[in-house]
Amino acid sequence: MILFNSDYLEGAHPVIMARLFETNLEQTPGYGEDEHCERARAMIRELCDAPDADVHFLVGGTQTNFTFLSAVLKPWQGVICADTGHIAVHETGAVEATGHKVIALPGHEGRLTAADVDAYCDQHFADESHEHMVMPGAVYISNPTEVGTLYSREALCDLREVCDRWGLVLFLDGARLGYGLASPENDLDLPFIAAVTDAFYIGGTKQGLLFGEALIITREDLQPHFRYMIKQKGGLLAKGRLLGVQFEAAFEGDLYMDMARHAIALALHLKEALQDMGVPFMIDSPTNQQFPILPDALLEDLRHEFSYATIQKIDPDHTVIRFCTSWATRPEHVERLIDALRELLG
Amino acid sequence: MILFNSDYLEGAHPVIMARLFETNLEQTPGYGEDEHCERARAMIRELCDAPDADVHFLVGGTQTNFTFLSAVLKPWQGVICADTGHIAVHETGAVEATGHKVIALPGHEGRLTAADVDAYCDQHFADESHEHMVMPGAVYISNPTEVGTLYSREALCDLREVCDRWGLVLFLDGARLGYGLASPENDLDLPFIAAVTDAFYIGGTKQGLLFGEALIITREDLQPHFRYMIKQKGGLLAKGRLLGVQFEAAFEGDLYMDMARHAIALALHLKEALQDMGVPFMIDSPTNQQFPILPDALLEDLRHEFSYATIQKIDPDHTVIRFCTSWATRPEHVERLIDALRELLG
Amino acid sequence: MILFNSDYLEGAHPVIMARLFETNLEQTPGYGEDEHCERARAMIRELCDAPDADVHFLVGGTQTNFTFLSAVLKPWQGVICADTGHIAVHETGAVEATGHKVIALPGHEGRLTAADVDAYCDQHFADESHEHMVMPGAVYISNPTEVGTLYSREALCDLREVCDRWGLVLFLDGARLGYGLASPENDLDLPFIAAVTDAFYIGGTKQGLLFGEALIITREDLQPHFRYMIKQKGGLLAKGRLLGVQFEAAFEGDLYMDMARHAIALALHLKEALQDMGVPFMIDSPTNQQFPILPDALLEDLRHEFSYATIQKIDPDHTVIRFCTSWATRPEHVERLIDALRELLG
Amino acid sequence: MILFNSDYLEGAHPVIMARLFETNLEQTPGYGEDEHCERARAMIRELCDAPDADVHFLVGGTQTNFTFLSAVLKPWQGVICADTGHIAVHETGAVEATGHKVIALPGHEGRLTAADVDAYCDQHFADESHEHMVMPGAVYISNPTEVGTLYSREALCDLREVCDRWGLVLFLDGARLGYGLASPENDLDLPFIAAVTDAFYIGGTKQGLLFGEALIITREDLQPHFRYMIKQKGGLLAKGRLLGVQFEAAFEGDLYMDMARHAIALALHLKEALQDMGVPFMIDSPTNQQFPILPDALLEDLRHEFSYATIQKIDPDHTVIRFCTSWATRPEHVERLIDALRELLG
Repeated sequence: MILFNSDYLEGAHPVIMARLFETNLEQTPGYGEDEHCERARAMIRELCDAPDADVHFLVGGTQTNFTFLSAVLKPWQGVICADTGHIAVHETGAVEATGHKVIALPGHEGRLTAADVDAYCDQHFADESHEHMVMPGAVYISNPTEVGTLYSREALCDLREVCDRWGLVLFLDGARLGYGLASPENDLDLPFIAAVTDAFYIGGTKQGLLFGEALIITREDLQPHFRYMIKQKGGLLAKGRLLGVQFEAAFEGDLYMDMARHAIALALHLKEALQDMGVPFMIDSPTNQQFPILPDALLEDLRHEFSYATIQKIDPDHTVIRFCTSWATRPEHVERLIDALRELLG
Repeated sequence: MILFNSDYLEGAHPVIMARLFETNLEQTPGYGEDEHCERARAMIRELCDAPDADVHFLVGGTQTNFTFLSAVLKPWQGVICADTGHIAVHETGAVEATGHKVIALPGHEGRLTAADVDAYCDQHFADESHEHMVMPGAVYISNPTEVGTLYSREALCDLREVCDRWGLVLFLDGARLGYGLASPENDLDLPFIAAVTDAFYIGGTKQGLLFGEALIITREDLQPHFRYMIKQKGGLLAKGRLLGVQFEAAFEGDLYMDMARHAIALALHLKEALQDMGVPFMIDSPTNQQFPILPDALLEDLRHEFSYATIQKIDPDHTVIRFCTSWATRPEHVERLIDALRELLG
Repeated sequence: MILFNSDYLEGAHPVIMARLFETNLEQTPGYGEDEHCERARAMIRELCDAPDADVHFLVGGTQTNFTFLSAVLKPWQGVICADTGHIAVHETGAVEATGHKVIALPGHEGRLTAADVDAYCDQHFADESHEHMVMPGAVYISNPTEVGTLYSREALCDLREVCDRWGLVLFLDGARLGYGLASPENDLDLPFIAAVTDAFYIGGTKQGLLFGEALIITREDLQPHFRYMIKQKGGLLAKGRLLGVQFEAAFEGDLYMDMARHAIALALHLKEALQDMGVPFMIDSPTNQQFPILPDALLEDLRHEFSYATIQKIDPDHTVIRFCTSWATRPEHVERLIDALRELLG
Repeated sequence: MILFNSDYLEGAHPVIMARLFETNLEQTPGYGEDEHCERARAMIRELCDAPDADVHFLVGGTQTNFTFLSAVLKPWQGVICADTGHIAVHETGAVEATGHKVIALPGHEGRLTAADVDAYCDQHFADESHEHMVMPGAVYISNPTEVGTLYSREALCDLREVCDRWGLVLFLDGARLGYGLASPENDLDLPFIAAVTDAFYIGGTKQGLLFGEALIITREDLQPHFRYMIKQKGGLLAKGRLLGVQFEAAFEGDLYMDMARHAIALALHLKEALQDMGVPFMIDSPTNQQFPILPDALLEDLRHEFSYATIQKIDPDHTVIRFCTSWATRPEHVERLIDALRELLG
């Protein structure tokens, strides 16, 4: 059985495992106040060209999203996101559980547009009974999005402008950020992302670490006291150095991006092969998640050897599925998948 | 200036005011533990043919909605409602502020259908990652709806069945319940509503009282300790007898329904007059809220003498507005409005 | 049966009732945006010599406390109060339900001292693991306190200084503020209170209104968007003018203070009579709540004719009780109570 | 520098690290639905003699505490704990952030007594205005306590009885459970703990794992849907198998208890040595945390070579500190500490 259903199927890259092993018996202070975390934070500030940013390491993405958003929203504010946004769909109402509405706007292939955010805010504040409605207070985007698409530099500049117009915090969920940066269609880089957003995170869990997300808060008035919040929300890992050690290893040399490029190359190879077979896609994704539309009969056979995620039935005989590649995907497994699909499609 | 923008423009019906005046210097225990509240509760149980129901008096509708819903939902559950539902739109995220997602499904003229609720639940529980999504735990409906429409007996029976199938609490917001019951299109009555829902409330604020909503909880396992919840959420009025006195007065004789019938007669008279003038409506409402579509130029003039609520611009030259009648609307004011509209429409 | 157990036993002062009656059929906008509220707000700003203050009317005290506190605390902050503080004891965890710890420090006859607050904050921030503990973010005091005592001008200045030192919001619960201001031991006035606190409220419910509290927010950065918060927490009364009308009536002429002085005169008369009889007190209260310690056998008899609140058993044969007077207390009832006590005490 | 300030200074036991290494490239489903977790759950159910228990793996203790408590408390309920309880002091108000008051009762060397809980509940429900106070809904205890002491079998049976009397959930925080079970003074075992509590957890983070706590829910009506709650609160680790693999390794053979016994032997050796030197203790702890009272002048010197946690200054010249041992403490380090102390004490 070869699994393609997600990008968190294995543990961590061997280099990272080795580093955890090497440092295992070091004695360090807890809660991220050790030297590994300090070094990893410095490296990230440097990579982002953001010397005054605060960098925090959290364990997972849902935790990072609701901890940050609930820290920065006023109690009467909600967060705008695309209707496919992870916080709107797949976090069991974690943001609402902290008291804030998730305001889901129709997405454009998973992306939120500046124009839509602007129109929503304009309508909100123009309404004579706006105090009876949740005030928009932040914008949540993910890059790559949940359907694998990317924001362009221009789209992010436009969102920034709209956020400034309406006083919104701009937060970018980078659970798969490396896979985005490694895509041939990407025109972003870390310093730009750090400059254009108020906060964002660089995902580790899906990108070669055992777990861990590096949250970078660049906007200074959002920085104070954030560690209280991490502790309160259960995100302050006792052995915080585990996060520091992993990010240190990932960002020494080019390991983080090497792992991402590996996944992207395989995903695009698979995509191309599927396109050659005439398979249609739900969406044109340039990253490590691919969403082909396949006949149900074929899937019935495919699942004996390969796993995939089921996304959505779109007609009586066809279903959108998701294949993911990752830093750990073996090229020969992709070849076997391609062969199997070719054979099944006949 | 004559106001038609809402149904809470005046104080209370003179009979109710008189009763507050008469009882003003009585000394009673606080927090609803007085004899007026006791009598009003008994009257309501009787009217609802629900001898084992718990009846609580709260001050306002938003308060009643979030206090009840947050008491009965599990922390990981949300409440399903129509996308026009008051809790989804006009309560500043009060339900989310208690930690629960409002799951807004597309409404059908303000109504939620059993089929839509069923399909949503089916999809939720069938999804392999359902634990990553908010579990539906309750259904919120309002009757009349926010756009003036009514549920039929059959529609409510269907919703009941679906709620039983999926273990959902069925809650009916009756902020304007009397106006619904007084409509010629209504086929419900209080005993039926008490039997078909798990809890509902009979609105006072919009129906001739100074303020106050009577919450009836019929499902027994939802009853215990609810007064703790009212206190915690700020809804336990110190001089609770003010609520008891008002509901007592409203339900002695037929005052509550008389007031409602008055409003409905005037609303339908206005509706007919507008139809005669060829004015289109956003929706065919049989209750005290009417939603005509009028030319912006006309509205420009109209507003010098009359107030209305602006609902939505629907084309460059037309806007949906809302006229409300109430227990307090004076027939001559409706005539003046009709005359003015007739004149302006030429 | 004559009730002395609380100060919210009757309705409202006849002048206030009359005003509600007179204005009953006026048509006004809802939610406090009417002219009565506007006038009442202007009067209060004037009385407080606080032309830039925001004034909001809410229905009750618990609602006012948690709505304000949860609006101004950061998610990781708690509010310091005396261990007898209303929010710590008698609001069913309303503040905690908004996510914030109530940090109860041992009170001094119901009062919090600047020294205790200072020491607590000093210890908090000096602790190397302070991020693992709730950060103090506000100070809640009540005047009169829950046990009838008063803060002096000097004590409040000291608290202000400590709050400034540690960045704490200073909030004063004035549910019985008038009774405090009317006490012969009082050295405060409204302009001083407005200047020394960041926000406070002038109670109506216990001071001659049917219900209602006037919240005055003087600190400017705490003012924006507060109406959203009131709506979300269920405190935005649809017929908001009921609050405006009542406060308008209370503050035209000297009605509010007249009512308070009436209660204080009777309370102090009762206190003196009890002292003459040699009855000990739990606390030396100069306001409308008196806490005598009485033999249980006597109470057994007393309760056939009079109600009182039971506070605490202090030895096998004695209990602390509370008698309250109010604007509505009839002098002859106090005389009857004194006579009865004299007789029972032999 | 040799660190004794906590028991989470190192990574994980080499056997556990090795297992993580061996399984690193396995492909498994996420979120704890893999075979390692399944096996670890089965082993724990077996060890606890609780075949119907639900076992969940979470990342850390604070997370486990608030996730469980907020899942089982009604919105109007709070949790009783000792005033030294971790949830009352060192979790940044995590429980309050979920809306529930922590009701801290004076502890007895860190322990809560059945009598105190009983008296508190009795007083609560006897109070005529009990609805104005937070209802007790659960009891939180930790074993060993935060100050290293243990509950006896008898004390837990008494607490169970009181919890049954008042309808309280009994929850035991076992962050250091192994260190408790390994103490010569212990008379508990896992099957007893599973039977006497409604839920408890077996700590991993402080007991030789990289991280992870195994929550065992034995009471059946508290089991349904708990995974929704874990996800919502950010505790559902994507690569959940990391937790399963570690607990599997810890409970195969006797590794978990071997590690605990190692720590206890060293702690008691240190304790005895200190006692021999005449050093007084804040508390008589039979577990891996020792709380000697030492002269400040000595500590000034000691800290050049050893770390410790500062607990409390108790007089102008003395301070209570904490030394922790753990599975990873090296015997020679303890000897060096003893030698240093002996020398400094002269």
